Amino acid sequence: MSENGTKRLALVASKGTLDQAYPPLILASTALAMGWEAGIFCTFFGLNLLHKQRLGHLQVSPIGNPAMPPPIPAIEALKVPNIVGMLPGMTAMATMMMQGMMDKARMPSVKELLDICIEGGVELFACGTTMGVMGIEQKDLIPQAKCAGATAFLSYAADADVSMFI
Amino acid sequence: MSENGTKRLALVASKGTLDQAYPPLILASTALAMGWEAGIFCTFFGLNLLHKQRLGHLQVSPIGNPAMPPPIPAIEALKVPNIVGMLPGMTAMATMMMQGMMDKARMPSVKELLDICIEGGVELFACGTTMGVMGIEQKDLIPQAKCAGATAFLSYAADADVSMFI
Amino acid sequence: MSENGTKRLALVASKGTLDQAYPPLILASTALAMGWEAGIFCTFFGLNLLHKQRLGHLQVSPIGNPAMPPPIPAIEALKVPNIVGMLPGMTAMATMMMQGMMDKARMPSVKELLDICIEGGVELFACGTTMGVMGIEQKDLIPQAKCAGATAFLSYAADADVSMFI
Repeated sequence: MSENGTKRLALVASKGTLDQAYPPLILASTALAMGWEAGIFCTFFGLNLLHKQRLGHLQVSPIGNPAMPPPIPAIEALKVPNIVGMLPGMTAMATMMMQGMMDKARMPSVKELLDICIEGGVELFACGTTMGVMGIEQKDLIPQAKCAGATAFLSYAADADVSMFI
Repeated sequence: MSENGTKRLALVASKGTLDQAYPPLILASTALAMGWEAGIFCTFFGLNLLHKQRLGHLQVSPIGNPAMPPPIPAIEALKVPNIVGMLPGMTAMATMMMQGMMDKARMPSVKELLDICIEGGVELFACGTTMGVMGIEQKDLIPQAKCAGATAFLSYAADADVSMFI
Repeated sequence: MSENGTKRLALVASKGTLDQAYPPLILASTALAMGWEAGIFCTFFGLNLLHKQRLGHLQVSPIGNPAMPPPIPAIEALKVPNIVGMLPGMTAMATMMMQGMMDKARMPSVKELLDICIEGGVELFACGTTMGVMGIEQKDLIPQAKCAGATAFLSYAADADVSMFI
């Protein structure tokens, strides 16, 4: 619990694909709606969540995830095999299909969720140590991103009710 | 700690491959054996854990994970390269091999672990928001799955001693 | 908090690629520097962190992760498509490039971080249940690795201030 008695959620976002960018944003915005405070420490590929250009172009991998549901969910035989998934254009196709499913399920976009997080005052930490590794500079990030290290995150998480690494 | 003073484990299961389905089930069943209470919030690909048809057919990816050990563990040179791993039948092959290693190590199947969790009263939440995205309806899930949102999970996790996102 | 009043970080390391081996080691060594105590429970592919031979040869996958930045970060069009990434030699190439970015960002190697963790007294648990599944024997691991089960980890994590599954 934070010093003022409010419940707190502390998250690390380390992945940068569309499917894995949603969980930290959904959890943080849900926490806000419950009157909690929340912080997201973006590191490695998770820095894409704070990246001005990349956030709007997150993608889903069509290969390497045998848990990916088939295009028509009831027909398991339609699952896209890796030898097809690796063809040019298939990453865009898989992304378009998942985005379509998300729109149908009326899920907000990652951009909309990030805006909710920003308006609600979610602390957005950009891991300074891994920015260089990902070829990202401060100017590539949204102005709300606060450059910080793992020390800042652990201090924040020490007072959290729920901490999770995503 | 929960209201009745019992220790509590709160997990999110977001992955649906064989290797990543085990950790939430092992942790929750271990917690039960220690007299804790436990809950698993299944979201995105993790919904496969509660899916009547899919649970028995979880697979391991033969590509995209350079940490996958070679078929004969002592001979690193036998590691399956991606160009071979992406061929038809290799996902089934990798799954069969890992399942074989698991049987040899006398690990229970995911189905057996889920049954232990159900009998022990683990709370099984199915994320209502992502069911649509994964093409899953309530009727596809086991009857013990309770359709819920992130709010229900965070409320549950707020009283947990250990919370983890898997 | 541990019995002696020191803050505690409890981590599960379940991945064995270069990019995913860093977070547990960075977090644990940062915790040490802050005067916390820390423990890492290595399971499944995460056992590579304690593997004498494998730790020095962790790799990055060139495929299946559309969040991988392009070789020249400012030019998104240079992103390596899966059909190229799956060619022989590309895993070594992607690893070399990420290692180069890490060296440029002056990040210590995973080996150096592990040494810091060992010297600082981080508890290193090797999951006995999954060692068999990964084809690993006690003699393959560094002497500081303590063979343990999920029970030992949950007992350790119950007294932690921050617990995370990586």
